[in-house]
Amino acid sequence: MTELRVIPVEGIPEVREGDDLAALLARATAFEDADVVVVAQKVVSKAEGRVMRLDSVEPSEAARELAGDEDPRRLEVILREAARIVRSRPPLVIAETRHGFVCASAGVDASNAPERGTLVLLPLDPDASATRIRLGLLERTGRDVGVLVSDSFGRPWRQGTTDVAIGVAGLRPLLDLRGVRDAAGYELHATTIAVADEIAGAAELVMGKTSDVPAAIVRGLEVAGEGSARELVMPAERDLFR
Amino acid sequence: MTELRVIPVEGIPEVREGDDLAALLARATAFEDADVVVVAQKVVSKAEGRVMRLDSVEPSEAARELAGDEDPRRLEVILREAARIVRSRPPLVIAETRHGFVCASAGVDASNAPERGTLVLLPLDPDASATRIRLGLLERTGRDVGVLVSDSFGRPWRQGTTDVAIGVAGLRPLLDLRGVRDAAGYELHATTIAVADEIAGAAELVMGKTSDVPAAIVRGLEVAGEGSARELVMPAERDLFR
Repeated sequence: MTELRVIPVEGIPEVREGDDLAALLARATAFEDADVVVVAQKVVSKAEGRVMRLDSVEPSEAARELAGDEDPRRLEVILREAARIVRSRPPLVIAETRHGFVCASAGVDASNAPERGTLVLLPLDPDASATRIRLGLLERTGRDVGVLVSDSFGRPWRQGTTDVAIGVAGLRPLLDLRGVRDAAGYELHATTIAVADEIAGAAELVMGKTSDVPAAIVRGLEVAGEGSARELVMPAERDLFR
Repeated sequence: MTELRVIPVEGIPEVREGDDLAALLARATAFEDADVVVVAQKVVSKAEGRVMRLDSVEPSEAARELAGDEDPRRLEVILREAARIVRSRPPLVIAETRHGFVCASAGVDASNAPERGTLVLLPLDPDASATRIRLGLLERTGRDVGVLVSDSFGRPWRQGTTDVAIGVAGLRPLLDLRGVRDAAGYELHATTIAVADEIAGAAELVMGKTSDVPAAIVRGLEVAGEGSARELVMPAERDLFR
């Protein structure tokens, strides 16, 4: 096993709708083949214009009920983004998005929004977002990198968020050890490792939430390949917690 | 933000009951102040003798019912380790341990056990395990490091395991951003980050499951302080998924 480096990408300006993230990244730092480039969902969404003004939203009755003391327009946007409400205790809503991700507020977030009175939504197709950044970096730098789009998700039973991958391009998000045996000849129990989520979490450690570091490079992994964040979603028939 | 290094600790021999892990680690590599040393639960449990022989176990009726086609003695050990069964679909059991962790099989694992016919259990007090390693490294190397004991946990809704921290010493496992505001003046939404779990996941990327790398160093973080893995357990009253 070789050492990993987790390198913050600094010097990215405030991202606006229409910005070319690959161009901004290529200008900010140098990449190497097989790097995994982790880009925070918030800047991907802003570049893609996935921002909604609260004053354009008319809350439904369901949104008012879920809102408790909070702004019902925010709950209305959450309901529009949600494919299914998993749990709610006003004003907290855990929802499944149309991508199949289960997370707080269906991924709708007010913090780090471009201005007050706006909400940032998840990208419509985060795998496609990752692929665009990957191809843009290949074109600009000649480097063949993997790209993850990351977001901070809470977890049942454990305090605090960890960053996970919601978009994947050019890498295998799962390491499948089924059939691999340990030294004593036992088949391994924890047979599939969500390396993409561990990579996203490692990147978060240098990205921070308040600093201006919207991307990081994880260097030294051997995960290049084909993949999609859909592989990280537990199929309904195997899910004990639907 | 500075760069992180994630360094595998190689050259640790097969661990047996009674082994001094700090001595083995200190012999294998050099540490620096403020390093976070992540040690796999499996070797901590083996050193502490938390291994059970299946042929010493008489399964109860409840264990036979939960076992399905699997060995009911294994289910008996899981039931003894569990404080509460959270979900079960034979032979899969998700249980809360006496430490408050919710995980598959109450942390009981046959893979990487010292020999066939044995099961490895979680340490009785993983924070105490981490503290012993921390103090042992301080004594042997003069270096003031943080220590995490890590294990691979599954998650609802997402495929694959990620490594998380089940024992903590000499570092703050949560980064609390409550009250911190973003550039637009909004209070941050994802206000607490489970950095200990992200560090454990980063370490897993160089530890692997089948290789002989039972520990890793994460270097470059500023997380030194006091902490316990109990902080990572969601209090029951805030838990929407009990």
